[in-house]
Amino acid sequence: MNKRYIIGIDLGGTNLKVALLDLKYNIKDREVLGTRSFLEKEELISGIVYSINRIIKYNGLDKTDILGVGLGLPGPVDTRQGVVHFLPNVPGWKEVRLRDILKKRIGLAVFLDNDAKVMALAEHRLGAARGFNNVLCMTLGTGIGGGIIIGGKLYRGFNNAAGEVGHLPINERGLSCNCGRSGCLEAYIGNSRILNSARKEFKRDISLEELSLLAAKGNRQAIKIWRNVGKRLGFALAGVVNILNLDAVVMGGGVSNAGRVLFDSAKESLQNQAMSVQGGHVKIFRAKLGNNAGLIGAAIMVREGQAS
Amino acid sequence: MNKRYIIGIDLGGTNLKVALLDLKYNIKDREVLGTRSFLEKEELISGIVYSINRIIKYNGLDKTDILGVGLGLPGPVDTRQGVVHFLPNVPGWKEVRLRDILKKRIGLAVFLDNDAKVMALAEHRLGAARGFNNVLCMTLGTGIGGGIIIGGKLYRGFNNAAGEVGHLPINERGLSCNCGRSGCLEAYIGNSRILNSARKEFKRDISLEELSLLAAKGNRQAIKIWRNVGKRLGFALAGVVNILNLDAVVMGGGVSNAGRVLFDSAKESLQNQAMSVQGGHVKIFRAKLGNNAGLIGAAIMVREGQAS
Repeated sequence: MNKRYIIGIDLGGTNLKVALLDLKYNIKDREVLGTRSFLEKEELISGIVYSINRIIKYNGLDKTDILGVGLGLPGPVDTRQGVVHFLPNVPGWKEVRLRDILKKRIGLAVFLDNDAKVMALAEHRLGAARGFNNVLCMTLGTGIGGGIIIGGKLYRGFNNAAGEVGHLPINERGLSCNCGRSGCLEAYIGNSRILNSARKEFKRDISLEELSLLAAKGNRQAIKIWRNVGKRLGFALAGVVNILNLDAVVMGGGVSNAGRVLFDSAKESLQNQAMSVQGGHVKIFRAKLGNNAGLIGAAIMVREGQAS
Repeated sequence: MNKRYIIGIDLGGTNLKVALLDLKYNIKDREVLGTRSFLEKEELISGIVYSINRIIKYNGLDKTDILGVGLGLPGPVDTRQGVVHFLPNVPGWKEVRLRDILKKRIGLAVFLDNDAKVMALAEHRLGAARGFNNVLCMTLGTGIGGGIIIGGKLYRGFNNAAGEVGHLPINERGLSCNCGRSGCLEAYIGNSRILNSARKEFKRDISLEELSLLAAKGNRQAIKIWRNVGKRLGFALAGVVNILNLDAVVMGGGVSNAGRVLFDSAKESLQNQAMSVQGGHVKIFRAKLGNNAGLIGAAIMVREGQAS
């Protein structure tokens, strides 16, 4: 068969990444566009189509070489129908039949899923969760997302909305969350909350990168902030681990770049709060595929979708 | 085939129930012994063996009529190896190879599992969760146990310890729990906590049955207590529902007999705290098989175990 390539797309709130991958999921070519430069839904869709066509042509290929297109996006998705329910932070996206639209305009098979699920798929097949049966993969960033692998397969739940670990409540009278409720994990360890704590502590604006760097250099204020984040994270994870008796938890996303200070604190807090049988067995890993997890997972989705 | 019966056993902290069931899980005969009348491990095992032999003989059968023995017990179990790790509240039980011991002494196939998992199996195959794919079954009593069905199958996790929903933490600086940690759901809505609240409210000892009766009759103090229990329950369930995007939650056990006042409050609190996609779809049911769930589930385990 001559279909030796896959198009993987990672549509984020900030960046639109389009990549050409081979069947072993090596990224052969890649382009990154700013999502916000597309003002309207139609423009963004056209941008995606244009970018797909360009990357195929630029690499001396044509559509008969392409197995299909996989796309991960940061919102709830009906994978079976190929419908994007909505995209938080991208106006104008509501119940968009994106799969059919793209399929019609590019003439290739198209697969969609939520980005946290796509990331979980990638980390399970090729990354940190490889070989583990029951895994939670978390993305720590502006939002806290999650994808769950059960028995080696992506677990979707009733309507593909499983994995919302950011909205696990950790306090009855807790902080207000973006979701409109309160006490959710995300309200405590989402990007903006961390940046707020840092601003209070340092009396100036400070980026996550700087905060991580300071902690790595031994700055006690920065370490305190990251340890608090880890403590909350571990506390929430203990609940998930007690319920799911997981083999492993994988954490990626911008916040996870804080590295060891964060992971050590999360592990300690998880061990303190989890039951010994469950806590004693679960492994905690940092995600391995980094920024490419979305592209690789999107390609895996195409290959596994084609095979099944 | 002439193996038309199954022995189902429900070994609780208070009662040891032994039943003869047909292949449609009808209970044909049943005996109930006091668990505490057996002082030592050996005595309890002998009591089980004796009771199995008696119920077979008493019904004019012999062992060739019996497909096997299923046994649910209130502690962590290695189902594959047939080992009981320990039994809380029953001294002397530690790493007991109960399956092999029973098999040798009665000459029948034996299947063991944790009682909450056995109950989940029963409620899924024949009770309130029938027809639902992804379900949490909870037992509300002295302890808060849980069994999870994923894709129609019992979900065990890494070492058969999944489902410990009683130890989902709901407050960072929370009440002390029997497990030695704090903030767990069980610390808020376990039997003893409810009885404590009732004692404070009514200035006297009061049973769960009376508390339920009073609430049903409109007593405002009793209603307040049950509404508080429901509120905590719903809050914790919101987290589970957000993570697992469940089809249904089934609640049984003594505390669930409080009925509507408890369920209405739990549903309201769940709806307030869960995300709309997940909360909007999940159904909440009262367990259907009551006190027989353990016996029926034990028999199902034998039948499904034999078939596989």
